[in-house]
Amino acid sequence: MLEVGGPRLEAGLRQTEERLAEVVAGHGDELAAHAGGSLAAGGKRLRPLLVFLCGGTAEPERRLVAAAAAVELLHMATLVHDDVLDQASLRRGTPTVFASAGRNAATATGDLLFSRAFAELAATGSEAGVRALSTASSALARGELLQRADAWAAEVTRERYLERCRLKTGSLFAASCRLGALLGSSDSTDEVLACFGERIGVAFQVLDDVLDVSGPTERTGKRRGTDLLDGTVTLPLIVASERDAELAAGDLKTAITTADEAEAMSDRIAATGALDEARAQALAYVAEAKTTLAELDLGSDQRRALDLVADGVVERYS
Amino acid sequence: MLEVGGPRLEAGLRQTEERLAEVVAGHGDELAAHAGGSLAAGGKRLRPLLVFLCGGTAEPERRLVAAAAAVELLHMATLVHDDVLDQASLRRGTPTVFASAGRNAATATGDLLFSRAFAELAATGSEAGVRALSTASSALARGELLQRADAWAAEVTRERYLERCRLKTGSLFAASCRLGALLGSSDSTDEVLACFGERIGVAFQVLDDVLDVSGPTERTGKRRGTDLLDGTVTLPLIVASERDAELAAGDLKTAITTADEAEAMSDRIAATGALDEARAQALAYVAEAKTTLAELDLGSDQRRALDLVADGVVERYS
Repeated sequence: MLEVGGPRLEAGLRQTEERLAEVVAGHGDELAAHAGGSLAAGGKRLRPLLVFLCGGTAEPERRLVAAAAAVELLHMATLVHDDVLDQASLRRGTPTVFASAGRNAATATGDLLFSRAFAELAATGSEAGVRALSTASSALARGELLQRADAWAAEVTRERYLERCRLKTGSLFAASCRLGALLGSSDSTDEVLACFGERIGVAFQVLDDVLDVSGPTERTGKRRGTDLLDGTVTLPLIVASERDAELAAGDLKTAITTADEAEAMSDRIAATGALDEARAQALAYVAEAKTTLAELDLGSDQRRALDLVADGVVERYS
Repeated sequence: MLEVGGPRLEAGLRQTEERLAEVVAGHGDELAAHAGGSLAAGGKRLRPLLVFLCGGTAEPERRLVAAAAAVELLHMATLVHDDVLDQASLRRGTPTVFASAGRNAATATGDLLFSRAFAELAATGSEAGVRALSTASSALARGELLQRADAWAAEVTRERYLERCRLKTGSLFAASCRLGALLGSSDSTDEVLACFGERIGVAFQVLDDVLDVSGPTERTGKRRGTDLLDGTVTLPLIVASERDAELAAGDLKTAITTADEAEAMSDRIAATGALDEARAQALAYVAEAKTTLAELDLGSDQRRALDLVADGVVERYS
C-alpha cells in the first residue's frame, strides 16, 4: 500500500513501527515476550495509514504518530483476544500469543495492549481523540458481543449483519480517519472522513467474510468455512439462504460440525451465486466512500491517496 | 463503609450507582444482559469512595462522579476477565458473566466495560485523568501477566510478590485517589494521595491472600487454598517456606492437584505462623499509608475519613 504515499508517509509509518516496538519493549518482559512476535509478524498497518492520509499534508509530527500507534495497538489487542476466543494457533504464519503463552497470558496481553493504546492517545492531550478511541473500542466489543449473541441464528438479517460489520471493523477505520483529521492539519472534516473510513471498513469486513467461503486456502492460511464452523452467520450465507430454500430450512448447528462439512457448505453457498452479490455489496460501500470524499475540499494528492486506499480494500480480493 | 462520610458522600456514591446503571443499560442489550447482574450484585465500591474522599470538600460534581464510575467500570472489567481465567461460576453470590453467557461473551463484556471506563473519563476533559487511568489499567494487566509468569514458581521473592500486589491492586487504588485529587477541589496533592492509595491497595491484596489460606469458607464463599490450586504463590506460602524447610523443598505443582490437598496445605502454612507475619506486613502498609497522609494539609473531616478507610481495609479481616 505504500505506493499511495511518498517519503513523508513512509517516514510516518516507520516512526509508527518504532513507537510500537518501544511500547511492546517498555512494559515488562512478559509483554515483550508475548507481543514481540505479533509485532514482528507485521500486518498491513492499514489503520495507521488512514491516520496519516487523513492527517493531511503537514509533516508527520509526534501526535499523529501517537494516534497511528494507538489505533494499531487497539487492533493488535483485539486480534490477541480474538485468537483466544477462536483458540487459533497461527496468525500471519506466526504462533499466536494464545498458542505460545496460553489463554490467561494472552487475555492479559490483550488488556495491556488495550491500555497502552489509550495511554498513547492520552499523551497527545486530545480529549476528542481519547473520546474517538473509546467510542471505537466500545463498538469493537459490542460487535463481538453481537456476533456471539447471533451465533447459529438462522434469522440474522442483512441489516443486522451490516450493523455488526460497522461495529466490528468500520468503527476503528472510522476512528483512524477521525484521529488523523483531529490531530493533523485538516480541520472540521473529521465527520466526513470518519464516514469514509467506516464505509471502507464495512467493505473490508464483507470481503473478508467472502474470502472465508471462497478461499483459496493457500491465500487465507485456513480452510474454507471457518465462520460456518463457529456459527458466525455472514452475508454469503444470508444471501445463499434467500436463494436456496433447502439450505435456509436446515439447522446450521446440526448441519455443520466438521471442517469437511463446512467446506462442503462453502461450495453450496458459492453455487447459489451469493459470493458475487456479497462482493457487489462491498463494492457499493467502496463507491459510497469515494462519493463521501467528493464532499471535501482535499488536495489532489490527498484525495488520490485516499481513493487508492479505498480501491486497495477491493483489490486484495480480486 | 458509608459511616466515614455524610450526606455529600452518600449523594456522590448514589449518583455513581445511577451512572453505572446508565452505562450498563445504554450500550446494547447484550451488555445490559451480561453485566446487569454483576452491577446489581453490588460490591464495596471502595474505589469510588476513594475518589470522593480524595476529591475534597466540594459538592460531588459531575466530573467526580464520572471518575468514580470510571474506576469502578475498570474494576468490574477486570473481575469479569478474572472470572473467565479462573472459570469461576459465582461472585458475590451471583452467577458470573462467564457462567451465564460463556467465555467469549464474557471476554467481550470485559472489553466493553473497559472501553466505557475510558469513555467516562474522556468526557471529563481531563488529560491527566485519562493518563492516570491508562497507567493503572496497564499496571493491572502487567500484574496479571506477572502472576501467570510466576505460577508454580517456588523462587518468588517477597519483593516480587509485593510488586505484583502493587500492580494488581495498588495501582487502581492509587489512580482512584489521584483522580479524586485531579478532578476535585484538592490540588497539587495528587502524588501524595496516590501514594496513600497504593499502600492501602497493597495491604488490601495481602490480606485478601491471607484470607484465601485462613478462610473461613462461610466468609469467602470458596474453599481454602484456591490460590495454591492454581499455582499463585502468595506471601503466606513465601513466609511458610522460609520456616518449613520440607515445605520449601517440595514441588507445588505435584504436591497440590486437588482441593483437599490445597486445604491441607493451607493448614500446614497456618501452622508455621506465616499468616500472622503476613497480616503484620499488611498492617505496616496501612500504618505507612496513614503516615503519608500526615504530610498533607487536609481538613480534619477529610483526614478522619481517609484514616477510617485505611483502617477499614484491615478491619474486614479481623
